[in-house]
Amino acid sequence: MAFLNDNYLKLKAGYLFPEIGRRVKAFCEANPEAAKRLIRCGIGDVTEPLPAAVITALHQAVDEMGVRETFKGYGPEQGYDWLRGAIAKNDYRDHGLEVADDEIFVSDGSKCDTGGILDILGSKNRIAISDPVYPVYVDTNVMAGNTGEANAAGAYGKLVYLKCRAANGFVPEPPKRHADVIYLCSPNNPTGAAATREQLEAWVKYAQEHKSVILFDAAYEAYITEPGIPHSIYEIPGARDVAIEFRSCSKNGGFTGLRCAYTVVPKTLMAQTKTGESLPLHPLWNRRSTTKFNGVSYIVQRAAEALYSPEGKAQVQALITHYLGNAAVLRAGAKKAGLKVFGGVNAPYIWVRTPKGITSWQAFDRILGEANVVITPGSGFGSAGEGFFRISAFNSRANAEEVSRRLQALQWAA
Amino acid sequence: MAFLNDNYLKLKAGYLFPEIGRRVKAFCEANPEAAKRLIRCGIGDVTEPLPAAVITALHQAVDEMGVRETFKGYGPEQGYDWLRGAIAKNDYRDHGLEVADDEIFVSDGSKCDTGGILDILGSKNRIAISDPVYPVYVDTNVMAGNTGEANAAGAYGKLVYLKCRAANGFVPEPPKRHADVIYLCSPNNPTGAAATREQLEAWVKYAQEHKSVILFDAAYEAYITEPGIPHSIYEIPGARDVAIEFRSCSKNGGFTGLRCAYTVVPKTLMAQTKTGESLPLHPLWNRRSTTKFNGVSYIVQRAAEALYSPEGKAQVQALITHYLGNAAVLRAGAKKAGLKVFGGVNAPYIWVRTPKGITSWQAFDRILGEANVVITPGSGFGSAGEGFFRISAFNSRANAEEVSRRLQALQWAA
Repeated sequence: MAFLNDNYLKLKAGYLFPEIGRRVKAFCEANPEAAKRLIRCGIGDVTEPLPAAVITALHQAVDEMGVRETFKGYGPEQGYDWLRGAIAKNDYRDHGLEVADDEIFVSDGSKCDTGGILDILGSKNRIAISDPVYPVYVDTNVMAGNTGEANAAGAYGKLVYLKCRAANGFVPEPPKRHADVIYLCSPNNPTGAAATREQLEAWVKYAQEHKSVILFDAAYEAYITEPGIPHSIYEIPGARDVAIEFRSCSKNGGFTGLRCAYTVVPKTLMAQTKTGESLPLHPLWNRRSTTKFNGVSYIVQRAAEALYSPEGKAQVQALITHYLGNAAVLRAGAKKAGLKVFGGVNAPYIWVRTPKGITSWQAFDRILGEANVVITPGSGFGSAGEGFFRISAFNSRANAEEVSRRLQALQWAA
Repeated sequence: MAFLNDNYLKLKAGYLFPEIGRRVKAFCEANPEAAKRLIRCGIGDVTEPLPAAVITALHQAVDEMGVRETFKGYGPEQGYDWLRGAIAKNDYRDHGLEVADDEIFVSDGSKCDTGGILDILGSKNRIAISDPVYPVYVDTNVMAGNTGEANAAGAYGKLVYLKCRAANGFVPEPPKRHADVIYLCSPNNPTGAAATREQLEAWVKYAQEHKSVILFDAAYEAYITEPGIPHSIYEIPGARDVAIEFRSCSKNGGFTGLRCAYTVVPKTLMAQTKTGESLPLHPLWNRRSTTKFNGVSYIVQRAAEALYSPEGKAQVQALITHYLGNAAVLRAGAKKAGLKVFGGVNAPYIWVRTPKGITSWQAFDRILGEANVVITPGSGFGSAGEGFFRISAFNSRANAEEVSRRLQALQWAA
């Protein structure tokens, strides 16, 4: 009989957001009146329409696909040269960072890439992951067999958990023990914290000493407002030898429903074979991309290209300004409500400490039931997220202001 | 130091089509005049524009994405209900086949799915693969560690190769030995052969006896013209307990550059854990889809839905008729050229025996150099493909007719 992948059986419960969806649905069915005033600040999904430059590019590309002379079939799996070039130039070389066009791999999402990258890594790696963390990093490692079983608290064996707490500004320090592969996300989902240059320098130094690979998720880099905060891991000298960077059009261009992202694999990044030979990872990711992927939709690649036009850049900036304005409103509201608030300055997420004695999911249920607002329970991101919840700033300004008011009206005392 | 996936080092040479691209590029650079009359019948990529119904649906969906009220962010990872429903109804239930909406998983390509499906299968499976075969099946198994090393002929250890030859109509019989996972593709890429009901019944019987899982690739089912040839593995009683089916919008709707496909995982399909417990694969694929994928672009899903409208269906049929007309022209031309010809009746591929003493790559070079036509060498699909080449019927009629003429003008004798 065919064997299934037993590692899947180690996975705990459902993926976080489907579970939230289930609870919200149940609440709305039981409370149809309250459901009418529901405001969703849970899943980190954009709410504003695509930039006008993107819409124009999409219509034009669709027209091309309707005419034989300009129709496009299979494209290069790694992305069209014009898009790889626009990304490498605008996001890196124009900022003084050395990234070649063919080190850019265009994909249909950072979720896919952060999961897929494990394909080219071996099975003997010790994996270090922040806690709390974007659940996909953990779950894909469980699926790949890189972990042991989960304990009662939901922590998996073999993983090196890097605790993120108020004391370290929610940015983990390099551990004392060895790790081969390290996931870092800055600005961070869920905490909204952004790593400083010094913090990233410490990580690059650690990776150089341990010959580790850093998987750097920069999906939210466009939200950085404070000067001096690195937008890319490659701002740190030596990072090209130790880091892969993931970026996405989802949260800057609003592509969550359109699907485009990219991954940077520097040609100087090495890993070892079982016999200890050191080889570059770039050819492996290239082979993985050409064999297990067939490229991003042509029309979507044209849409992504439009983000780099002068109009596109201005329209993206307007979106970021809008969402960061919401974040400021939500931060202020939560503070006035007497809550301890983190994040929301370099990220579209506010990370809020629950009132004393109230768990993350209890806070979720209270805020849903009494304020009719959906947030995300911090414990859904890992055990160190217990006692926190995340508010997403992806919304209309009116909704952000209303959520701010409702948070202040909440009576937390029992 | 971080470990890489050593299995990648077992992969032989490049993926077939990049290698063809390299040779064609070198030829064109060396022969600029001949390059002007080059006709590509190599890679199986459609050439005709998208159906009008698809273009209309795309423009409409793009407009929705430009307005806040109709903007779509993240959709369900498995696909929107309206698309899953349209697929299950039109492609299955309207043909009397039992497939539920939530057994349909919409994806961005069958290449991705036939590779990704290995994620949910264990590492101890014995894999049976046709020879010749679509290279992705083999390469993704090499990457996943399901094979040994390749021998001098390019055959990988541990794989059960199912030889496809003229004697068995290029449809393999079930082997005497045990296999846990079996790849079948009908109508076949590259041979153009389509399995009969009796042949598929034998495979379902084998899978029932061995408790194997059949991975049935039906990407070319729209090209079936002969009555009685099954369009789906689920036409065979019992198949819901043993088979996953892959289908694509690439070759019927012309979506090779737009990217949409789907996979059917029946809820009754089981596989075993290491300890011998029998569990359904559906929840595993669902978990894989929600964790490692973020859904197909909304606008592309609307485009796929348009294929099921009355106009869409008629326009798809016109595309199929066009390409099959090319196939008939190419078949006739190759026959008149004195070549032995297979396929091209239920598939857009013609499978041609090379003249005596000429290898597949020699035929490739001769046809490129003398006829300025790009075909695909049969040996690129496996060792049993040696002595054959594939002609793709994806082209304009004028090009198909010209290729037919040039094949007849070729002087094969040395």
